[in-house]
Amino acid sequence: MTGDDAAGNGLLSRRALLKVPAAGGAGLLAASAGGAERDAWMHAPGAPMSESGAPSIHEDVRRLGVASAPGTTGTGVSRTPLEHLEGIITPSRLHFERHHSGIPDIDPAAHRLVIHGLVERPLQFDLDSLARYPTVSRIQFLECSGNSGALTAPNPVPAGCGDLHGLLSNSEWGGVPLALLLDEAGVKPGAKWVIATGGDAAVMSRSVPLAKCLDDALLALYQNGERLRPANGYPMRLFLPGWEGNMSVKWLRTLMVTDQPAMTKDETSKYSDLGADGRATLFTFPMGVKSVITSPSPGLMLGPKGVYRISGLAWSGGGRIRRVEVSADGGATWADAVLDEHVLPRSATRFHVAWRWDGRPATLLSRAYDETGAVQPGRSAALAGRAPGSFYHYNGTQAWRIRADGSSVNVYV
Amino acid sequence: MTGDDAAGNGLLSRRALLKVPAAGGAGLLAASAGGAERDAWMHAPGAPMSESGAPSIHEDVRRLGVASAPGTTGTGVSRTPLEHLEGIITPSRLHFERHHSGIPDIDPAAHRLVIHGLVERPLQFDLDSLARYPTVSRIQFLECSGNSGALTAPNPVPAGCGDLHGLLSNSEWGGVPLALLLDEAGVKPGAKWVIATGGDAAVMSRSVPLAKCLDDALLALYQNGERLRPANGYPMRLFLPGWEGNMSVKWLRTLMVTDQPAMTKDETSKYSDLGADGRATLFTFPMGVKSVITSPSPGLMLGPKGVYRISGLAWSGGGRIRRVEVSADGGATWADAVLDEHVLPRSATRFHVAWRWDGRPATLLSRAYDETGAVQPGRSAALAGRAPGSFYHYNGTQAWRIRADGSSVNVYV
Repeated sequence: MTGDDAAGNGLLSRRALLKVPAAGGAGLLAASAGGAERDAWMHAPGAPMSESGAPSIHEDVRRLGVASAPGTTGTGVSRTPLEHLEGIITPSRLHFERHHSGIPDIDPAAHRLVIHGLVERPLQFDLDSLARYPTVSRIQFLECSGNSGALTAPNPVPAGCGDLHGLLSNSEWGGVPLALLLDEAGVKPGAKWVIATGGDAAVMSRSVPLAKCLDDALLALYQNGERLRPANGYPMRLFLPGWEGNMSVKWLRTLMVTDQPAMTKDETSKYSDLGADGRATLFTFPMGVKSVITSPSPGLMLGPKGVYRISGLAWSGGGRIRRVEVSADGGATWADAVLDEHVLPRSATRFHVAWRWDGRPATLLSRAYDETGAVQPGRSAALAGRAPGSFYHYNGTQAWRIRADGSSVNVYV
Repeated sequence: MTGDDAAGNGLLSRRALLKVPAAGGAGLLAASAGGAERDAWMHAPGAPMSESGAPSIHEDVRRLGVASAPGTTGTGVSRTPLEHLEGIITPSRLHFERHHSGIPDIDPAAHRLVIHGLVERPLQFDLDSLARYPTVSRIQFLECSGNSGALTAPNPVPAGCGDLHGLLSNSEWGGVPLALLLDEAGVKPGAKWVIATGGDAAVMSRSVPLAKCLDDALLALYQNGERLRPANGYPMRLFLPGWEGNMSVKWLRTLMVTDQPAMTKDETSKYSDLGADGRATLFTFPMGVKSVITSPSPGLMLGPKGVYRISGLAWSGGGRIRRVEVSADGGATWADAVLDEHVLPRSATRFHVAWRWDGRPATLLSRAYDETGAVQPGRSAALAGRAPGSFYHYNGTQAWRIRADGSSVNVYV
């Protein structure tokens, strides 16, 4: 190790990160060659303005792993291609999907949200009436509880970062604090749960503790500045910051205040966690602290040896990310990554660290810590106590093996 | 005024805002009617997952005022429809445009950024080499210096919020700190300016003080998580937080370090400010503190009298927004608005206030303060010292006159 090293196998200190870019790939240039010749595309006017912009045809990034259950077209998932993104916002067109019976084609003028059950005044809301209420917008992640579950397989699946961890996206969610609407309805004494049901054909239904609904739950109407998109619950969805994604019921239609959970099909047949002792744990709501290196990762080739940016995302249902460590030697030594500008509660947080790759095989890992003191476990610890095949809420560390040719692959360490 | 009022003509206190939603439009419901009947769209599976999502067909929001100079197709603007957005992120497809000769169709593999001039080592960078450098991502606004300039007209233009103020957008911009690249090139003593030129047919060129380039300037590669879009400079642009938009040169191609500004056509024939005394002020870089009420505003109709959400955006090139005041009586009295969750430096900041509309005509205004102590001026103060027709950097307050029928119109107060 040199004075610039922060951990083994080439992980560089933040100080080094700020002074070693010369190890990067910039080309020295003859001093006379200052861009004097025009490029081909500078000889004629370019394309005009437009009413709606689109990505570059050279960057045709799409959602990954679009898959439906046999015999269905809309019961399945698609995943965010995390390895092609930077920063913390997920473009709305690339937000992951998990639908239980497709995307309903809801008429926004006909849609109503009903709040009923243990309330003084059962109420219904249409979009116009909601335009009168105060809104809050927050940048927060949404993660399917099944995300990263492929890492519970006995042998490493040869898949990429988005394939494995892309049931995670991060957006600015805007809407009306649910507490305001419940307060208007007047929650009766004895109420403890709210049963949320969606307007899809599966009538996706989950029981949500009343305390969460009165804390930071949103009736979300906006995503990344614009109205929710159909795949994300248009015209309105529940949004429960930091909790497993399926509880943030899309196409929200009814909220029934009750004194007990409903034990719906969606919380008994699915989204419960089977232990090694054969007992199932219901209601594992918050998503654990997790991180993943998005670059380098499978599908992104390293070029010649030298300094590279290791970039990744960390998030936790517990609150803010406090620290991320990265290892380049399979977990033997660890260096602190730099957390990027926006470190927000229950939001994906971007981290970086500089790495001097010597051109030989290496194993990269990241490990996140949140403000509650929770630490992302290694794989063995993350599997402990699980029944075989129990894959919800897996948050173990992800290892990428970098090969000498610059490619990389999912491995277990 | 009642105990819930914060200022004249119905502006409500924050306390009231949290307890008066009952004045909103929720409908009381028979207790038995808890969403029992299924809606029409719940009887069959919905649409499947997809590789790329799209907005709802019911929310066909587009950029406004797409216009080109006579005889050109790509020398002009399009504007962000601010009145249809919430939160602070502008969807990339709706980011405003200001092009000087259209959008070049750049081959990313052939594009190079050259840093030359008063440097020890002239360098050139391609996209691959830049993948090795540390990046930073920040949520910040970009505003054309001509934004809101229509308010300098002698009579109020009957236009909407986006038409008047939509040369403002707010994104997460990600890229390599320019200071790192300049440090690698080795800036020579005596250097004071950097001449940035773009790869469009207009060769958009601006002189940027070296100090800004070494402070918070980015070589931006990403916008809202994905690669820059062509209309925003793909594959790379300069991004100068808080400064007039045209200086954040798109399709960035060369940076020439010099000891003096270049006095390019783009900073002499345009983007200089003509005073009433006939003298032009060059190099007015930071955008002033500004705010605008986005809702209600022209095109958005109020319904029956009652409580409404007043929502708007405030921003400043000087840093964070500290305070926004709203008036519902044409500026006679003012109430503090609530600043939304994310109050970030040089970012659009969302504000809200609750307003009990009595159904009579009213005049709404907002006024922003930033952390430097700067205050958004009224119209007269904002016009003082300007030559007729000088419209850059106009940041006076915007007044909307609400009519008894719920419509609204741009007025001067």
